[in-house]
Amino acid sequence: MNLSVYLARRQQRVNSFLEGCVPATLQPEKLAHAMRYSLLSDGKRVRPILAIAACEAVGGQIARVLPFAGALEMIHAYSLIHDDLPAMDDDDLRRGRPTNHIVFGEGMAILAGDALLTEAFRVMGEATARAGGRQGAAVEALVEIAKAAGAHGMVGGQVADISAEGTVPDLPMVEFIHVRKTGALIRAAVRSGALLGGARPRQLQHLTRYGELIGLAFQVADDILDAEAPSAFTGKNTGRDRERQKATFPAVLGLPAAKDHARSLLADALETLVPFGPRAEPLAEIAHFVVGRAC
Amino acid sequence: MNLSVYLARRQQRVNSFLEGCVPATLQPEKLAHAMRYSLLSDGKRVRPILAIAACEAVGGQIARVLPFAGALEMIHAYSLIHDDLPAMDDDDLRRGRPTNHIVFGEGMAILAGDALLTEAFRVMGEATARAGGRQGAAVEALVEIAKAAGAHGMVGGQVADISAEGTVPDLPMVEFIHVRKTGALIRAAVRSGALLGGARPRQLQHLTRYGELIGLAFQVADDILDAEAPSAFTGKNTGRDRERQKATFPAVLGLPAAKDHARSLLADALETLVPFGPRAEPLAEIAHFVVGRAC
Repeated sequence: MNLSVYLARRQQRVNSFLEGCVPATLQPEKLAHAMRYSLLSDGKRVRPILAIAACEAVGGQIARVLPFAGALEMIHAYSLIHDDLPAMDDDDLRRGRPTNHIVFGEGMAILAGDALLTEAFRVMGEATARAGGRQGAAVEALVEIAKAAGAHGMVGGQVADISAEGTVPDLPMVEFIHVRKTGALIRAAVRSGALLGGARPRQLQHLTRYGELIGLAFQVADDILDAEAPSAFTGKNTGRDRERQKATFPAVLGLPAAKDHARSLLADALETLVPFGPRAEPLAEIAHFVVGRAC
Repeated sequence: MNLSVYLARRQQRVNSFLEGCVPATLQPEKLAHAMRYSLLSDGKRVRPILAIAACEAVGGQIARVLPFAGALEMIHAYSLIHDDLPAMDDDDLRRGRPTNHIVFGEGMAILAGDALLTEAFRVMGEATARAGGRQGAAVEALVEIAKAAGAHGMVGGQVADISAEGTVPDLPMVEFIHVRKTGALIRAAVRSGALLGGARPRQLQHLTRYGELIGLAFQVADDILDAEAPSAFTGKNTGRDRERQKATFPAVLGLPAAKDHARSLLADALETLVPFGPRAEPLAEIAHFVVGRAC
């Protein structure tokens, strides 16, 4: 299969859907601008595409998963806006452009993030209301995503990350942070896609493991890129993790071992996909892509 | 009926429920502290009690509405934390105590708000999953609350409020702001309670109108209190609206006309309750209480 065609088509579906979630006509206009600036920027749409690919791997239709895929991206966009704030990571560059608060001011950036998070649940709720006989799976997917984004997941991970700054990180601490901060939402993307696609329990189990492995691999790769790649390549200021003594995999393992770790996570992730046959090819390709960026 | 007994019993139910939503054992500990500081503080629980009273007015059971009532308070608590931030209203006193960011720092306050908002949807989602034959009404209530809290509701209102600072406010602007910033969530509290209680369409229509009127009355009363009452009475710094040239009802109408407006909204709200008979007594008492604080 041709991954770039697969990705491009699904990115397009996700982007059109997101355009409709936060239309340019939304009032107040300033809020619409700030939300759209971060949501509709040039992202890879990794989480939405993982949800879609997981749904397709179990034979489900894209239309069922699309609102949840869009909601995952809205939650991701909100988390980036808030993470970049001066009171958090204080970053001024993201995806090659000034961060949200640099353009719109801190107050508006906080509110744009709040609105994106809330609208994500509005979108999932509306899709659930329309889900007919599949309402149970839709509710389950919504809960899955809420848990992954909340205090036990992404927000908890960000708190642990900020608290760890300046301390001497060890591997358990780095894994605690990353499982929550990045891993949980990626796992939820895969699981929600599988649930909405009608996965059987055994399939859900395999895909859950895939999601966990790929979530961790994604973060290890990000850490490696931050340590190695020039800003022009990543679209954000790199080398910041070291400056801020962030708890990262390269910091505790060293770069070569971090790369080995990423490659080993990739191998394990690919193994979980074997029972799905060719239907899981996109998921396998995405796993290669995630790790390949950095190794 | 004895409103203080009615309120005290329901406040107690809501408080026990909220205690379970954000347990002290939640990790990371710092996040649990910051969330609990604002959520479990000494609030009136107006939104949860409106939801419960609306549910009871149509003959519904408290147990059905309780998770949604709790979620409404979590959303309210998050909005207060974020509104008080230096980048927004920059308040250091709330309910007689230092605001969240004064105690926990800005970064943690932003994250505690994010977590409360997300957990609110987790709680509603989990209740919806357990709702059995009433799942449709539960999904509808969740969507109702998401819409009221998001870009078209509370967040949109806060954006308009911040944007209006320093301009010369007129009545349409003040109403635009307040309908969204405070009114939408209060309306959603009443409507979600009614939906979960099994309201018939005509009942829902009356209670929607009640929610709109009481939402507006609540904000007019708050504006009057800010202009008139000493800080010791309200537990927050008063007179701040005038200082910041906020768009308020007293600012555009003058104090006596603002009080007339509040009393007239109260009269209209009471009229919407006539068809419900004695079952709506708590809603009537709450309306009296809301306006009585200020007039």
